[in-house]
Order: sequence, then structure tokens, then C-alpha cells
Amino acid sequence: MEEKEIQRLIEKGRAQIRRGYGITYPDYKSDQELKKPQPALVKAPMSDQIIDLPMDFEGIEKETDFLTIVNSRSSHRVFTEETMSLKQLSYLLWTCQGIKDIRGKSYATLRTVPCGGARHQFETYMAIQNVESLEDGLYHYLPMGHKIEFLKKVDDLRDFINVSLERQIWVERANVVFYFSIDFYRVEWRYGIYAHNVAQIDAGHITENIYLASTALGLGGCAIGSVDGKYCDEVFGLDGENETIFYAHPVGTVSVKDEQKEKDFYAFVKEQGL
Amino acid sequence: MEEKEIQRLIEKGRAQIRRGYGITYPDYKSDQELKKPQPALVKAPMSDQIIDLPMDFEGIEKETDFLTIVNSRSSHRVFTEETMSLKQLSYLLWTCQGIKDIRGKSYATLRTVPCGGARHQFETYMAIQNVESLEDGLYHYLPMGHKIEFLKKVDDLRDFINVSLERQIWVERANVVFYFSIDFYRVEWRYGIYAHNVAQIDAGHITENIYLASTALGLGGCAIGSVDGKYCDEVFGLDGENETIFYAHPVGTVSVKDEQKEKDFYAFVKEQGL
Repeated sequence: MEEKEIQRLIEKGRAQIRRGYGITYPDYKSDQELKKPQPALVKAPMSDQIIDLPMDFEGIEKETDFLTIVNSRSSHRVFTEETMSLKQLSYLLWTCQGIKDIRGKSYATLRTVPCGGARHQFETYMAIQNVESLEDGLYHYLPMGHKIEFLKKVDDLRDFINVSLERQIWVERANVVFYFSIDFYRVEWRYGIYAHNVAQIDAGHITENIYLASTALGLGGCAIGSVDGKYCDEVFGLDGENETIFYAHPVGTVSVKDEQKEKDFYAFVKEQGL
Repeated sequence: MEEKEIQRLIEKGRAQIRRGYGITYPDYKSDQELKKPQPALVKAPMSDQIIDLPMDFEGIEKETDFLTIVNSRSSHRVFTEETMSLKQLSYLLWTCQGIKDIRGKSYATLRTVPCGGARHQFETYMAIQNVESLEDGLYHYLPMGHKIEFLKKVDDLRDFINVSLERQIWVERANVVFYFSIDFYRVEWRYGIYAHNVAQIDAGHITENIYLASTALGLGGCAIGSVDGKYCDEVFGLDGENETIFYAHPVGTVSVKDEQKEKDFYAFVKEQGL
């Protein structure tokens, strides 16, 4: 790869982050400003196999103190493959995407995470294995009413997880991999041509809550940007054009005994004397 | 603005979020893979007016229960302009960017927020007014040792805040506006041409912790993507090429009595019958 092409791509990447340096479009109006009809706040169910999630979280947290949770959060990539409870899964989904209220008749959802303009342009898909009372397979979160729906079984779920996350082999032992899609028009309706940069930052609110909620439950995981979105879209049945999977977060059961194994992931740091 | 140009920009925005649809560069190697020297983990102090921050947070939280904090977090845009304590400012900085440990000799900082590859490519600048024992003006966080440095006074701090955040007038009453820059090469060293999308998502981890920490302290605020990065770079003395401000989060003192005023921000929802 030529140095000139590398520099072109680096500059292109930087340009999408800079604010206020580019061309401005003073006469541009978004579809909201043009009073075009608003898209649906959430995606409609894709199947008829809908499962209610428990909202009774009494006693399931191993740690409840906010600052202790922040101070003890770390990334986990070694999973013990014990069963995750349905309440634990429910708690994770609630804290990262749960709907607390509706603004207006149906103007916006107010959720357990903030999102620019309360657009909440994300959908949550899951690869689930070894979660209490759930068949292994692919699922979709229905935040209205806090439910999940079973989408389908896949022949080799571990292989799907591996390939979808660009063969980071440790992920296949997670109980749940959350795959986040963006439904573009939900945020473009309000922000139009300016939607795309901030829309991505909002996804970090979700994964931070998953990190903290996992720590509260004594579970572990790690957000992942190396996602094969095209492959995920095919398997979950998304068109890639209007909705595409772009971010993931596996969560699994962990053990304090595995701390040394966690450190081994950084063995190259020691090897290279960094 | 022509519809064709709007569609081109929308498609350009979407393309930067999609994963696995574009051209791949199988022979590309990042500077880390090429074993080039690693950049500094944090920016060096820019002044000699350095102030230690207290780390004794005993008793300053109004709410400590994680789930209660998540459930009660909301955006706040009405500030009461009381004095913020130095401990409160210290708690906000600690929970959003504090350094808990160093990995290797000087390979990576492990912080109170996660960041892809532990690159922590962000620097935190502040406009501060009405914070206990601090002169009003511009500051920079020094995460090594948990300190801040005073950069300079500005003639009209409220005007600076307003202009920097594209004249969202409510922000001028915040006690502190956090301005986040990205130091591009810190993340490009490891991820190169693939750095820029995930680098932005990581910023959401920071602002989510500010939301939650503010809630814990009984303070309020709201992350802001409408930042005039070029203007901020000029005022804080950043080159815009290698480091640029792209995201902000004002935090101020709030009152439960102002709940109605908060709702008035959504008056248009009612007006338009949405």
C-alpha cells in the first residue's frame, strides 16, 4: 500500500471528526425542519416468538456502589461458561437501552442512556448461548415493554460469533454478544447531513452502561469495534443500506481466578519491552 | 441546496459507519505493527500553574446506588449558578478520565473509562466559572497525578462558551464546560487508517460517565455535539491538524424545582402535536 494512499485515508478519517473546518450549508433543512413525517421510534417485532423479561432486580447485583463500580470496571476476555440468568440478561438490556418514558404522543423515547435529540437510532441484536430458559440462537431486543424476540437458530453459533467479530477467538465463550445496529433515518430525520458523527458517539453511552452493569453483576466483557457488519447484516436479515450492524459487546460469566489469564492478553507488552 | 448533493452527503455519512462493505487493505500495517516509536500517553503540561485535585470523595455523593443513578439520569439545561466545589469537579474528572494504572513501562494508561486498545486519545479542556477556589478561565486536565492546570483568562467567558457551542444560550450558566479533543496520532499509531470511527465511539464512554457522576453528585448537564471545533482550537491553542476539539459536556448546579423549565425545552413537541 502506497504511503500517499495511507495519508489520504488518514486525512479522510481525521476530516470526519473535525468540527467547523469544512464547508457549511446555511440553506440546508433537515426533514424534521421540513415537517416531514417522523419515522417509528423503534423497529417492529420481526418474529412472533416474544419473551417477557423480568424487571425484578432485587438482590442480583454483587456491587451497587457507583464509584466502586467505576473504579473496579475492567475489560474481560476470559469467560467461565457458567449459565447466565435471565434476570442478568434483563438487567443488562434495561441499563443499556431500556425505555423509561415517552416524550409527547410519540415524539421520542427517554431511555436509561442519553442520545442526541433523544433519537435512539440503535437496535440491539443478540447471539445468546447458555442463558437460563432461553434456546441458544439469535435474538432482538424489543425495548417497548422490555421484551426480547427469538429470531432463529444458527447451525454453529460459536462460528457465527467468531466470524462476525473478525475471529477474536475469545468471544465465542460469551453468554451473550450484543450487536448494535444503526437505523440511519431515525437520526437523519432530525439531523440530516450532520447526523453521522454524533450518532456514533451515542453508541459509546450504551457500551459504557454495559461495562458498568456487567461490573455490578460480577460479569465481564469488552466493547468491540472490529465487527464484520456486512456478515452480521446478512445473518440478522438487515439490508445494510438503511440499517447496519457496526458495534458489538460480548458479556459472559467471569472469575477473579482468571485475572492472570486476562493479563496474558497483554503479554506482548512485556515481550516487546514497551 | 440540491437534493442530489444532500443525498451524496447522506451516503458519505452512512458509508463512514458501515463496517465490512468497503475496500479492504490486506497489506496495510499500522505504525505499531511497523514497530515505530509510540507517542506520549498524555499531553505534557502547557503552563506552570498546576493545581492538585482532592481525591477524598467521602460524603460528597447525594446518590450512590448504581441502578438508581442510571434510572434517574436525565439531561439538564437549567442551571442555578451556585458554586461548584473543587471536590465535585475532581470527582467528575476522576470518573471520566482518571488514570487507575499504567500497563507495561509506559505502554498504556488504564482509566476509569474504557477505550479501544487503551489508547485514550482524548485530552480534556475546561471553561470554568464559579468553582470553589479557582479563578474563572480556561483549564486543562493533567490525568497523570490527577491535577488541572490554569491556561488563561478570557475577556468574556460566557461569550466564549456560547460561541464555542454554537450559541445554545443555556450553556453559559454551567460551572464547567468540558471540551474533549482528540490527539489523532495516539490512536492512529495502533489502528492507522482504521482508527477514526471507533475513536469517536470511545468518547461516548467519557460523556456517559459524566452523566452518571453528575447524577450521583446532584448536578446536571448534557453532552453536546454542536461544537465549533475550529474556534475552540484557536482559543485553547490547538493546531486542529493533529489535535482538535470535537465534543463537549457542560455541567452545572441544578434544582429539582426547575423540572418544569426543563420540560419547556420540549415545548415544540407539544406545540406541533408530535
